[in-house]
Amino acid sequence: MNQIIPFSKERMLSGDRVTGKLHLGHYAGSLHNRVKLQSRYDTLVMLANVQALTTHFDHPENISRHLREITLDYLAAGLDPNESTIFIQSMVPEIAELTVYFSMFVTVNSLRHNPTIKAESGNRNLGELYYGFLGYPVSQTADIVFCKATVIPVGEDQLPHLELTRKLIRRFNELYRPVFPEPQAIISEMPRLVGTDGNAKMSKSLGNTIPLDCTEEELAFKIRKAVTDPARVHKDDPGHPEICPVFSYHQAFRSQEADKIQEACQMGSIGCTECKRCLFKDLNLMLEPMRERRAMYNRRPDDIEDILKTGTRRAQELAKETLGEVREAMGLDYFNHNQVN
Amino acid sequence: MNQIIPFSKERMLSGDRVTGKLHLGHYAGSLHNRVKLQSRYDTLVMLANVQALTTHFDHPENISRHLREITLDYLAAGLDPNESTIFIQSMVPEIAELTVYFSMFVTVNSLRHNPTIKAESGNRNLGELYYGFLGYPVSQTADIVFCKATVIPVGEDQLPHLELTRKLIRRFNELYRPVFPEPQAIISEMPRLVGTDGNAKMSKSLGNTIPLDCTEEELAFKIRKAVTDPARVHKDDPGHPEICPVFSYHQAFRSQEADKIQEACQMGSIGCTECKRCLFKDLNLMLEPMRERRAMYNRRPDDIEDILKTGTRRAQELAKETLGEVREAMGLDYFNHNQVN
Ligand code: SF4
Ligand code: SF4
Repeated sequence: MNQIIPFSKERMLSGDRVTGKLHLGHYAGSLHNRVKLQSRYDTLVMLANVQALTTHFDHPENISRHLREITLDYLAAGLDPNESTIFIQSMVPEIAELTVYFSMFVTVNSLRHNPTIKAESGNRNLGELYYGFLGYPVSQTADIVFCKATVIPVGEDQLPHLELTRKLIRRFNELYRPVFPEPQAIISEMPRLVGTDGNAKMSKSLGNTIPLDCTEEELAFKIRKAVTDPARVHKDDPGHPEICPVFSYHQAFRSQEADKIQEACQMGSIGCTECKRCLFKDLNLMLEPMRERRAMYNRRPDDIEDILKTGTRRAQELAKETLGEVREAMGLDYFNHNQVN
Repeated sequence: MNQIIPFSKERMLSGDRVTGKLHLGHYAGSLHNRVKLQSRYDTLVMLANVQALTTHFDHPENISRHLREITLDYLAAGLDPNESTIFIQSMVPEIAELTVYFSMFVTVNSLRHNPTIKAESGNRNLGELYYGFLGYPVSQTADIVFCKATVIPVGEDQLPHLELTRKLIRRFNELYRPVFPEPQAIISEMPRLVGTDGNAKMSKSLGNTIPLDCTEEELAFKIRKAVTDPARVHKDDPGHPEICPVFSYHQAFRSQEADKIQEACQMGSIGCTECKRCLFKDLNLMLEPMRERRAMYNRRPDDIEDILKTGTRRAQELAKETLGEVREAMGLDYFNHNQVN
């Protein structure tokens, strides 16, 4: 039941680290884009469980559970298994093979100076980093090349990673043979979502997320508790929407109304309670069809299993094909296409 | 045509980087031991072509040729394909998978302080190293664990590597489940062989080797040109065998005669020409049966192909079995034994 993909269709790869269920930040950052673009591109969506191990190697038991939660999040958010190939990273071992090959011609320096690695490693010394963590941009390159992806939906902050990937791909193509296309970025139009507490990052560990699977009551509660402009004591005090997380959600999810809200807040003509009510109403409208799809899939766990299996099988086939070319290019195909049986 | 291996038999893994045909240094350092021990252990011999790429990624075209040369060297030296499983590293992709998993819990520091990495990286900065090269002890660990090897024939200088491997194995077993045995070293009794020019290392790039496949004439030439004690001008000058490469070959390959040679050299009762003649004669006797086996296999190239295929197939089976356990231990077996077909 493989889809027949017309040759000219660009291939889009995206994915999520399997470290917990998804929230509105994921949706705004990338998932929204994938759902919108899934029919335009040959869409692959990777459940990055090996990447999750890089930082969670000591608690692998959670990853299996998260894997099913995220798949449900995907389907609820509108990824259509007939359009999108959802697959499990660890079940495509060719990605590990490619990681090893690409490891050989990237220096430690070009990895350590990668801004994302710098940001995520914080103040730790290079020497204290885990080797696998330092190699994160290499394994990301392997994720992209195993299926010869040509477009990658990313946030602005992921661009340096992609630049390194493109550099590594050029290097491979020069060293051996032009096997891989250089992928292009599709940058999300939605801004990066701040947390409900005003923190620059929406993150489960900070407890400031709005989960994609929240009920109407949870959503109401989350929005009620969300931080607003602290200068507004009375509802007619002039506000500063630019520092208000609630306003940023209006921008992200109600962009057509955002100008009106901004003006009303600045003029003190709307109270925070009313402002939050409008946000709640539209967010709830957005989440409602997701809840319905989630409920439907929850009644059919075997379908989820089948979707993952079918997607993973297709990813495995693409990987085999690519590795065949890679081995040939690198002079590693000793026997007839590496078959010994 | 798999061998039935009694369960109690220890498993020995060894191998060579596929960077050129083998010489007497390889024979003394490890190959000799493998041949001697192949019936005592379940013996696996790895053609390390991926490891060769770590330093030769820009010239992969040679690796395929070297692969067949080394296999012939093995068979000539006396590895018996009915006792020893000779296999190609790149065709066991599970080794790359294990490399990725073990990468996650080893720090950059424990790799950079590894004496072998230190020695081989010379004066280069950590940052200038290739990422894959820095990870050499990790991939070596993967080589060892994929088949659950229990004994490893090594030179003294390789002991720190093996110590790191043992540490990583303990870490894995603690983190997940005791999957891997801790391998023991079998240290070669033969001293590390110096080059014919007196350099501490016999190495093709220094042009100071005696290749395993040399003819009688080549052997005679190599020994004739070998450096001796420069203080000996006349044949009855007292010599210093301890600084003479020729004497070290006597020690390695004619250990029973070495004391006599030492005394005669020190007393000036043997000339270098005569001393070299004795060495030549015995080395040639040692190489003669190798030449015969080589000639035989050279007439049967299909046999070499079959030996490599059979060996690789067995290695692949062992790898599959091990990875099944690894995935289960790490909580990565989502479906029935990772099968999606
Ligand atoms: S009115 Fe809206 S945008 Fe303005 S501070 Fe209140 S919640 Fe924020
Ligand atoms: S006699 Fe033999 S051991 Fe002594 S210097 Fe000459 S070659 Fe070397």
